Amino acid sequence: MSALMQLLAIETPIVQAPMASVATPALAAAVSNAGGLGSIGIGPVAVEPARAMIHQIREATDRPFHVNLFCNRPAIADPERQAGWIAYLTPFYDRFGVQPPTALIESYASYLVNDAMHAMVLDERPPVVSFHFGLPDAARIAALHDAGIVLMASATNLDDAQAIEAAGIDVVIAQGIEAGGHRGLFDPDLPDQELSTFALTRLLVRELRIPVISAGGIMDGAGIAACLALGAGAAQLGTAFISCPESAADDAYRAALLGEAANRTRLTKVISGRLARGIVNDYITLGEAPDAPPVPDYPIAYDAERAMNAAAKAAGDSGYAAQWAGQGARLSRALPAADLVATLRAELDDAIARLSQLTSRS
Amino acid sequence: MSALMQLLAIETPIVQAPMASVATPALAAAVSNAGGLGSIGIGPVAVEPARAMIHQIREATDRPFHVNLFCNRPAIADPERQAGWIAYLTPFYDRFGVQPPTALIESYASYLVNDAMHAMVLDERPPVVSFHFGLPDAARIAALHDAGIVLMASATNLDDAQAIEAAGIDVVIAQGIEAGGHRGLFDPDLPDQELSTFALTRLLVRELRIPVISAGGIMDGAGIAACLALGAGAAQLGTAFISCPESAADDAYRAALLGEAANRTRLTKVISGRLARGIVNDYITLGEAPDAPPVPDYPIAYDAERAMNAAAKAAGDSGYAAQWAGQGARLSRALPAADLVATLRAELDDAIARLSQLTSRS
Repeated sequence: MSALMQLLAIETPIVQAPMASVATPALAAAVSNAGGLGSIGIGPVAVEPARAMIHQIREATDRPFHVNLFCNRPAIADPERQAGWIAYLTPFYDRFGVQPPTALIESYASYLVNDAMHAMVLDERPPVVSFHFGLPDAARIAALHDAGIVLMASATNLDDAQAIEAAGIDVVIAQGIEAGGHRGLFDPDLPDQELSTFALTRLLVRELRIPVISAGGIMDGAGIAACLALGAGAAQLGTAFISCPESAADDAYRAALLGEAANRTRLTKVISGRLARGIVNDYITLGEAPDAPPVPDYPIAYDAERAMNAAAKAAGDSGYAAQWAGQGARLSRALPAADLVATLRAELDDAIARLSQLTSRS
Repeated sequence: MSALMQLLAIETPIVQAPMASVATPALAAAVSNAGGLGSIGIGPVAVEPARAMIHQIREATDRPFHVNLFCNRPAIADPERQAGWIAYLTPFYDRFGVQPPTALIESYASYLVNDAMHAMVLDERPPVVSFHFGLPDAARIAALHDAGIVLMASATNLDDAQAIEAAGIDVVIAQGIEAGGHRGLFDPDLPDQELSTFALTRLLVRELRIPVISAGGIMDGAGIAACLALGAGAAQLGTAFISCPESAADDAYRAALLGEAANRTRLTKVISGRLARGIVNDYITLGEAPDAPPVPDYPIAYDAERAMNAAAKAAGDSGYAAQWAGQGARLSRALPAADLVATLRAELDDAIARLSQLTSRS
């Protein structure tokens, strides 16, 4: 048992990634009941619904679980850019028979400026809280720690990881370029170093003192064993859990993950305004076309995509959805979460046993 | 001992990457004598000097070694594009006080069209030959196999890997996006799937029947253990060996690998005309500037860079060199090759022993 597993009070070194809008309280509870760390992402959720999600997990498990918060820089509104984006998309809204939005809004507030969310989290005291896109200020970190909450944060490079350690966060999540969903880069205006799960995990294990969780491209027990070999204390898997019946993924998303489309994922800014990896579809192709105007800031761009997807989906077209997925998507398996965790545990044990039979000397 | 280690007749699952212009016969022989598979790259070397390199290895070891050949599509000359590239670079040639080249040439022939190189390889019969950038035709593959040579080829995606297996190649090298030097993508005009070592290794292990060697971002024994956990039969390390005294790297390259510059690598086409990962320097910045014209085809672009680097280096400026390096460059160690292999073996044993003490159940 690793020090990290003791800190998180979990039996098996598996964290189910919080995946906002996809991970449900039922998924989180099933993973926690199976010995891993179940998770939800409440970044885009309003305060009282987020509280209700935490209550739903607690009704279904007495094991530890994990709540993720978005610490992005609040959106920089640019009415001209937003109008240009709507104008560019208008022929497609027309195609699906809906009015384009008259304006695009920042439909959810960053935790950095969401005092009501902070108060709710302090009130509910989930066992583990993680941060994505950055860190809150020292006062919030101290308040969460004083409430007995274990804190984690995502890093995509050494600079951000060192900031996480310096801020007193307990655990760093090494998010490799393979990962589905949003890159956690703190400053989206800096060049992305594009480090892989492998390279980043090894770098952070060697350069930091706090425990490391690997994330990105991990789909099975052999992958988890590889992360542990690199010195991580656990592995965080997102895409692997999307095909579970407990996730909120719709039928089209499930079909994409289990079909040929899973072979092609891509990092793009056009869906939300920040880099995120998803299955290549018509909306990404449209947004990245050479004549496309600049994308609005995160999460304002999301507002346009959600309106488009709602219209397209009503017309039976799933090509305009945000189908986040990592580079390992092709290895997806549609299993109930408890079965998936049990399978991952058995595969991990097998991988370790197989490796134990090898030594560098014949 | 893995099936791959038996096939290659090596004691330890470590392949030193062939790294044309950097890996020397002395480096290859030292690695082979230490129990790994030492390698040279003869892609850019003329036939008789390449033969001499093979002889030098054989004088220094009786162990197996590995010779890499470039199977790129022969360059597509475009005099206008080449003239534009020279014109763009001319102020920099001027700065270093040299005449710009009057024309750029394809300074080495692809193995695909180099009959003399093929005859030399059949004559010398190195124990292992690998292909990069593609595959030769069936007749060449059959001739090499008939000569008793074990064949390997690099893949960056499942499509190329399946072509490798279908062609009867014995081993596939899974080259992740982390790897230093040139991406092995067969068709450089297709979109690069940018799969990591982790994701690609796991995909190829699960989808192919031939053994897989992982390559890209691997710098220490923990990294090798991770590759073995993913199901690879061995790991190929390039950047880790550049700092060995036996490599041909110059002092500036060694200093870059062991200093802060190693934190920033980048995939670029501007040095050679094909995507390759190296330490970011002035030449890359210059070639990627917004006003830069289109880069000539591989390897014609290399001709311009080599002239520029020769002039800059003579003036004491190392910012125009091709300093290929992978994402793990920061973890470089300046050790003699035999010591590095012994260290890697000990670290690998340690990593396996550490992992054996973990199980998924506490």
